[in-house]
Amino acid sequence: MKMVIAVVQDQDSNRLSNALTKATFRATKLASTGGFLRSGNTTFLIGTDDEKVPNLLNLIRENCRARDQLVAPVSPMGGNADAYIPYPVEVEVGGATVFVLPIEQFHHF
Amino acid sequence: MKMVIAVVQDQDSNRLSNALTKATFRATKLASTGGFLRSGNTTFLIGTDDEKVPNLLNLIRENCRARDQLVAPVSPMGGNADAYIPYPVEVEVGGATVFVLPIEQFHHF
Amino acid sequence: MKMVIAVVQDQDSNRLSNALTKATFRATKLASTGGFLRSGNTTFLIGTDDEKVPNLLNLIRENCRARDQLVAPVSPMGGNADAYIPYPVEVEVGGATVFVLPIEQFHHF
Ligand code: NI
Ligand code: NI
Ligand code: NI
Repeated sequence: MKMVIAVVQDQDSNRLSNALTKATFRATKLASTGGFLRSGNTTFLIGTDDEKVPNLLNLIRENCRARDQLVAPVSPMGGNADAYIPYPVEVEVGGATVFVLPIEQFHHF
Repeated sequence: MKMVIAVVQDQDSNRLSNALTKATFRATKLASTGGFLRSGNTTFLIGTDDEKVPNLLNLIRENCRARDQLVAPVSPMGGNADAYIPYPVEVEVGGATVFVLPIEQFHHF
Repeated sequence: MKMVIAVVQDQDSNRLSNALTKATFRATKLASTGGFLRSGNTTFLIGTDDEKVPNLLNLIRENCRARDQLVAPVSPMGGNADAYIPYPVEVEVGGATVFVLPIEQFHHF
């Protein structure tokens, strides 16, 4: 068995949860902030058999992969109107940081 | 040393905390949801010496084991009154999912 | 790679966050309570290369080490005024509990 710890942006968290449930992976979710990714994020703890780890990693990549997204410009409120860019800009959203840890024992009571 | 990660239903969380304190185990608690158990749950992180792991697992099992509990029926609010069961039903409550992980270093500053 | 899990008192959490960012360590923070330290505390998850672990441990020790602090006395509200100690007392604050865990795989999507 392995413990997979995945830190995922909040905007991808529900989609990943649904994909995990559909594939019968069981995850515990912890609210987390900062660091690996822009805040806020969700930390998933997922215990799984060794042979299912590649499948799980695929699921996480498919649902959380970093991608560029067009974001509508925000009008300047006061500030320097010369610096205002009047067209959508691309920002990177999503992304997941994933650790696979060894487990010595697993119990279910 | 080992790191024991236990995901425990909220209704058993205080009882387990007290039992751990009494047995001089030191635990950090994280609020968590979903997945391994019905939400909400508490994730305990417990660092302990190898030889105390069996004792710790016993404590968790004794305080958090899944068991059936009689639950009073809820009166139907509108809905199909024909489907209303006017006697208590058994539901499973409790249960813990426990992982034992190896630790390479432990420090206390 | 290693996963370093550090449980740190809330009063040292921001200072440690800033020190980690400055040293380009990336941490995920989880709100936690009790156990290893007086509540509340923050649990940091930090993935790092093996050779940077000693530097990371130094940063945690420097920013979170347990130390004595003078605390102004609190006036007795009702209660036994005879037991009132009218001078500052030293209490221990800070302190961190740190675990270094092995990682089998690390991925960034
Ligand atoms: Ni990234
Ligand atoms: Ni169960
Ligand atoms: Ni201490």
